[in-house]
Amino acid sequence: METPQSAQPHQNSNVVYIGKKNAMAYVLAIVTSFNKGAQEVIIKARGSLISHAVDVEEILKHKFLPNTKIKDIRLITEKLQSREGHMSNVSAIEIVLTK
Amino acid sequence: METPQSAQPHQNSNVVYIGKKNAMAYVLAIVTSFNKGAQEVIIKARGSLISHAVDVEEILKHKFLPNTKIKDIRLITEKLQSREGHMSNVSAIEIVLTK
Repeated sequence: METPQSAQPHQNSNVVYIGKKNAMAYVLAIVTSFNKGAQEVIIKARGSLISHAVDVEEILKHKFLPNTKIKDIRLITEKLQSREGHMSNVSAIEIVLTK
Repeated sequence: METPQSAQPHQNSNVVYIGKKNAMAYVLAIVTSFNKGAQEVIIKARGSLISHAVDVEEILKHKFLPNTKIKDIRLITEKLQSREGHMSNVSAIEIVLTK
């Protein structure tokens, strides 16, 4: 007998937003999320921090959780409003990791 | 009757390496590749230029070739040797685009 699918498939997912801290800070946040039972962790970053997000994922995969799998990578464009009210486009990445 | 699979599936693929030029330079290089008959174009970038590669892909998709599909996104770690002979790791991205 199969267990019914949850209506909220991402109930156990966690999002880690990449900022300007050292990569290890984010690597540890992801490891902690998985250790607390998350089935899925999403790394999100915008603009120049996209490169940093890839660093975080690579360090995680090569040094801490080699069994982590990339379920999906999404490239998106977000619209941001500047303080002066101008709209501008900024690229963003979402890297979906599973155990 | 099926046609035999080519031994070189990437025969018609082209690689665009992202450097420090304006994003439009790379967008135009990709558009030109597809116009010349490429079935697949791979955008490659390393280190801080990964963010620029995502910008290029997003501009291409939203403003020039909306029917382009992302076939695959690969995140990798490359080993680079500095002038002093030290080895260091650098993250890289490969975005595989198809028409």
